[in-house]
Amino acid sequence: MMIKIYGDIYSGNCYKIKLAATQLQIPHEWIKINILNKETETASFLQKNPNGKVPLLELENGTCLSESNAILHYLSEGSALLPTERLQHAQVLQWLFFEQYSHEPYIATARYIVRYLGRPAEHEERLQQKMAPGYHALDVMEQHLTRHSFFVAERYTIADIGLYAYTHVAHEGGFDLDAYPAIRAWLQRVRQQAAYRDMQAFDQQS
Amino acid sequence: MMIKIYGDIYSGNCYKIKLAATQLQIPHEWIKINILNKETETASFLQKNPNGKVPLLELENGTCLSESNAILHYLSEGSALLPTERLQHAQVLQWLFFEQYSHEPYIATARYIVRYLGRPAEHEERLQQKMAPGYHALDVMEQHLTRHSFFVAERYTIADIGLYAYTHVAHEGGFDLDAYPAIRAWLQRVRQQAAYRDMQAFDQQS
Repeated sequence: MMIKIYGDIYSGNCYKIKLAATQLQIPHEWIKINILNKETETASFLQKNPNGKVPLLELENGTCLSESNAILHYLSEGSALLPTERLQHAQVLQWLFFEQYSHEPYIATARYIVRYLGRPAEHEERLQQKMAPGYHALDVMEQHLTRHSFFVAERYTIADIGLYAYTHVAHEGGFDLDAYPAIRAWLQRVRQQAAYRDMQAFDQQS
Repeated sequence: MMIKIYGDIYSGNCYKIKLAATQLQIPHEWIKINILNKETETASFLQKNPNGKVPLLELENGTCLSESNAILHYLSEGSALLPTERLQHAQVLQWLFFEQYSHEPYIATARYIVRYLGRPAEHEERLQQKMAPGYHALDVMEQHLTRHSFFVAERYTIADIGLYAYTHVAHEGGFDLDAYPAIRAWLQRVRQQAAYRDMQAFDQQS
């Protein structure tokens, strides 16, 4: 028995969990779920997660945990990836909530429309509406990374994993990072972290 | 010197912080910020929070923390409102991320359009688009609360505070809770928590 992670390789929210589990060397069974085929909407999946979303973590005893950033927190507790000092812990969460509210709905959704839906005409207006708030999120990140090497505590944490997931593929949704040198340098620092290269096989599938 | 909380009384995200600080009896200075007057977009405010949002917590040393649910975590650490057991801690975060991604963008935004923008015709289509996903979030909550008294660990935590904030005013955005008896019973349980009545003066202003 080991933990199970239900994920779709094309989803950055799932990529986060794969990256953290790989870097933390947590043995796990990766169960492929295809979102486009609506495999998150089957009765058996909804029994595990009534909200119908991946990633989903299933513990050995069958208990399920959803929400990518809550799973990151669970997996990293007690490791160097999750600071325990009160303010730093809250700052990690601040960036993860920023990611889910101000970054993912624009940067991930634009990529979804372009790469997975094939940029159909009926979504063009919606795609264009994602651009300004997406760039605003990148501006906030750039401003922070101009003064800091990582998002919290000047070291690599799950805040970086959470934000790396969709930022490193932001160009697939049409976001140009040329004007964001601090973000590009940070992306490179993340790629230099231990075990990052073990993700390459996973990256090549996507 | 005491901590400062920058908030707009009309925002449920700010209400969360007021409720938690009141129940935890944390002395604080509440600094009124008017979102509609764009007071979150002034240069001085953006220096405190480059993402231009309230609530914002400012510590005695000037350090600022943003994102309502990260502030809840900071304020409640070490109290009964935040479980420390690994899975329960992650479950609290699961529900708080659910709140920000699957609940607030629909239930809070509908309320904003109806109550604060006055339901203008140009937002009617957007308002209607909020209904189905908003009710989906309520369905997920109802299903959980049918089997549980609170969201995590069968006791009142910041997960309840986070979800109470916009759920207890969901009707202001046009959501009808008649078909949600478990949610209505849970709202009542929240109202019975210690110091809840101290929020009445605050409620009456909004």
